[in-house]
Amino acid sequence: MATETLATWSKDLTFSSLPTEVISAATRSFYNWAGCTVGGSAHPATLIARKALSRFSGPPTSRLLGSIDSVDVDAMHAALFNGIASHVHDYDDTHLDTIIHPTGPVASALLAMAESLERPISGEEFITALVAGVEAECKVGLGVWPDHYDVGWHITSSTGSIGAAVAVSKLLGLSATQTAHAIGLAATQVTGLREMFGSHTKSFHPGRAAQNGLLAAILAGEDYTSSTQALEAKRGWANVVSTSNKLDEQIGSLAPSGRWEIVQNAFKPFPCGIVVHPVIDGCVLLHGEMNKAGLSVDRIEEVNVEVHPLVLELTGKTAPRDGLEGKFSVYHGGAIGLLFGKATPAQYEDGVVVGPRVVGVRDRIRAKVNAGFRADECHITVLFEKEGGEHVTIEKHVDHAVGSLERPMTDDQLVEKFVDQCVPVLGRERTDEASRWCWNLERQQDIRQIKTVL
Amino acid sequence: MATETLATWSKDLTFSSLPTEVISAATRSFYNWAGCTVGGSAHPATLIARKALSRFSGPPTSRLLGSIDSVDVDAMHAALFNGIASHVHDYDDTHLDTIIHPTGPVASALLAMAESLERPISGEEFITALVAGVEAECKVGLGVWPDHYDVGWHITSSTGSIGAAVAVSKLLGLSATQTAHAIGLAATQVTGLREMFGSHTKSFHPGRAAQNGLLAAILAGEDYTSSTQALEAKRGWANVVSTSNKLDEQIGSLAPSGRWEIVQNAFKPFPCGIVVHPVIDGCVLLHGEMNKAGLSVDRIEEVNVEVHPLVLELTGKTAPRDGLEGKFSVYHGGAIGLLFGKATPAQYEDGVVVGPRVVGVRDRIRAKVNAGFRADECHITVLFEKEGGEHVTIEKHVDHAVGSLERPMTDDQLVEKFVDQCVPVLGRERTDEASRWCWNLERQQDIRQIKTVL
Repeated sequence: MATETLATWSKDLTFSSLPTEVISAATRSFYNWAGCTVGGSAHPATLIARKALSRFSGPPTSRLLGSIDSVDVDAMHAALFNGIASHVHDYDDTHLDTIIHPTGPVASALLAMAESLERPISGEEFITALVAGVEAECKVGLGVWPDHYDVGWHITSSTGSIGAAVAVSKLLGLSATQTAHAIGLAATQVTGLREMFGSHTKSFHPGRAAQNGLLAAILAGEDYTSSTQALEAKRGWANVVSTSNKLDEQIGSLAPSGRWEIVQNAFKPFPCGIVVHPVIDGCVLLHGEMNKAGLSVDRIEEVNVEVHPLVLELTGKTAPRDGLEGKFSVYHGGAIGLLFGKATPAQYEDGVVVGPRVVGVRDRIRAKVNAGFRADECHITVLFEKEGGEHVTIEKHVDHAVGSLERPMTDDQLVEKFVDQCVPVLGRERTDEASRWCWNLERQQDIRQIKTVL
Repeated sequence: MATETLATWSKDLTFSSLPTEVISAATRSFYNWAGCTVGGSAHPATLIARKALSRFSGPPTSRLLGSIDSVDVDAMHAALFNGIASHVHDYDDTHLDTIIHPTGPVASALLAMAESLERPISGEEFITALVAGVEAECKVGLGVWPDHYDVGWHITSSTGSIGAAVAVSKLLGLSATQTAHAIGLAATQVTGLREMFGSHTKSFHPGRAAQNGLLAAILAGEDYTSSTQALEAKRGWANVVSTSNKLDEQIGSLAPSGRWEIVQNAFKPFPCGIVVHPVIDGCVLLHGEMNKAGLSVDRIEEVNVEVHPLVLELTGKTAPRDGLEGKFSVYHGGAIGLLFGKATPAQYEDGVVVGPRVVGVRDRIRAKVNAGFRADECHITVLFEKEGGEHVTIEKHVDHAVGSLERPMTDDQLVEKFVDQCVPVLGRERTDEASRWCWNLERQQDIRQIKTVL
């Protein structure tokens, strides 16, 4: 029943039934996605994909966000390229209970499709479809978490295809049966092995998931048939891609009687794996205190950080050699926090990661595990030798890193993140216009107008 | 090492190193694929996909085989549509050790790509790439067989993406490292749940696999990066999609030091699951004997067939309601063999399956299991009451069904199958031309010339 239940739930979802906090979460998710997509638009992974595949695009309808030359391609390719760009800096959103980055696959498919339609799609319709897609992928993700991820699947894309299919089916007004077929067509395209982490293919995953779901909904809309028990059948998705599942329970917990998942969506303040965030957060705060106290980073003798065990397991690289490796180094994260007071994509560029000032600070950082810490907790101690030989120590304990559900990024912080990513690509004026347009998503009358600003 | 070994093997493969029987097997595989693709070109699954997706095609370069109006689309869409058509009648080839239908994903991608290139691809180059792709998919398939299939994956498409990627990489002359990246990009797109059997999505699988592999090779050709241990890594393809594997052993057995898999490829004489073939084969033979003996099918009292246990498990439908269900009925298969002396797609049309003459014979067939039989063995006894009340019995024991490796389809039988499928679509004259062209694959100087005949 899970497949048909989900399909019917999505078909029946209305904008007027969405609580205010859901609309706000959807707007923030879209806004953050748009900024990340612009920010990733010039990354080699995005540019190579465009170079390799643009010749296969049909008539252009849909914008590549942030393309300086305002490039449109067909909806299929826009879904792929925007999906890659949205994820390539590891800067996108995170549904913390599943570590799904939910908006990439869904919004990339949805926006591309909405732009290609002849009738205008309103912001309200768009938000409703976005919520349907995000709820779908997070619920099926919760249904197979954590075994599915442990097996080796990149859960963002393996569930993202399904989320994108549900969202586009909603946008196109498919029947419940057609939506079930779309879910089946998406479920049978299981994309994303974790083995690909560390290569361009990691960002290919959400892009391809967006395409998979878009393709699924378009085929189902013409009555291409699939299984209507695709998720729950004996040899259906959940049983094939996971060693155990609680799919029925999770699909049974769809809102409003159950829980809205999009409200659980968090936003990354820093463009790297979430386990490094507490250390960066603490170091950014210490940077401000050092400035006030007149303590120079050049006088640091030693930095000691205590962290959750996963931090060293996942990000223990002591001498990263480029930007990508920098994302897997808690030492680099701490160094840029102390040195620059910020960690944006600019601080993860290759030249910065191997630059002498960063390396100088990085090499003085020692990390050790504190098994009693939560994943979003850390403790940092910085020892200085002042001129004249006096020793000074300052400390910072981070209970919950910024970006966690306990300390969510504020709207202002999301704007700052958006601006940081967009200004180098679009310039200040267009960035401000784009920022206003995206925040106003709910009141837009025609989504196709996004092309006037992005 | 499996991924890099496979990539290097493929890069180094030359036409001159192919034994005659490999070239012959490749030609027969391509020929059979072309006929099946023409035969499936007007099936609803193919037509719906074309209707839904053609608007996303870029500039047309590649032929939809059998399209009456000589339609070209871009290589990506040709790979998808031809791949669907090639499989939709369940009439394609079978690598019996893995039940992979190997040529669909590989040839659909390869032909589409070859047609889109500016330089001419010769028949020899095409055959070399086809062999590389088929060997790749069958070896990785053997590496995870049978657990992978038991888990619930449609092994034709889950390995087909990899085969198509290897074949197109070979065609494009990619380096070994690029080919390894292409394998990784293909491996991360795991398409095909067995739950989809019985719906249009089953034939979507080899079509999407062709696209997945084509996309992978094109991206890798521009240096999009992936993992070079994609197949064998701890969280790589084999470990994620199967509960056990012998990948190293199988990749270690690549020809010429090991075994050529394409020589093990068999061709279906009948458009249905292979377990029904012994019964159809026997009934077709009995049809001929009945004609000679002047025994009318109208005088049949009872037909008793003894079969391998899988036959009733998979194809035990006693009263199929349409063509698709007819494929899962050993009773329908027997009836059309006795009645028409043949089983082509025409005998699986909806009207035939529920027609009174077929139903009349079908209802007199009884099947029972003989646990001592091989899968390609059966015994058939037909009891007649002649005019005047005399009873006559004729029997047929099938040791190995036609189409098995012990009794492979002859070239003449392949031609008859090709003609049967193509004449209704292309007419007799074009069919004969197309047949000659495809048999002459090895001597073609420019694959793009296929458009002059198909």
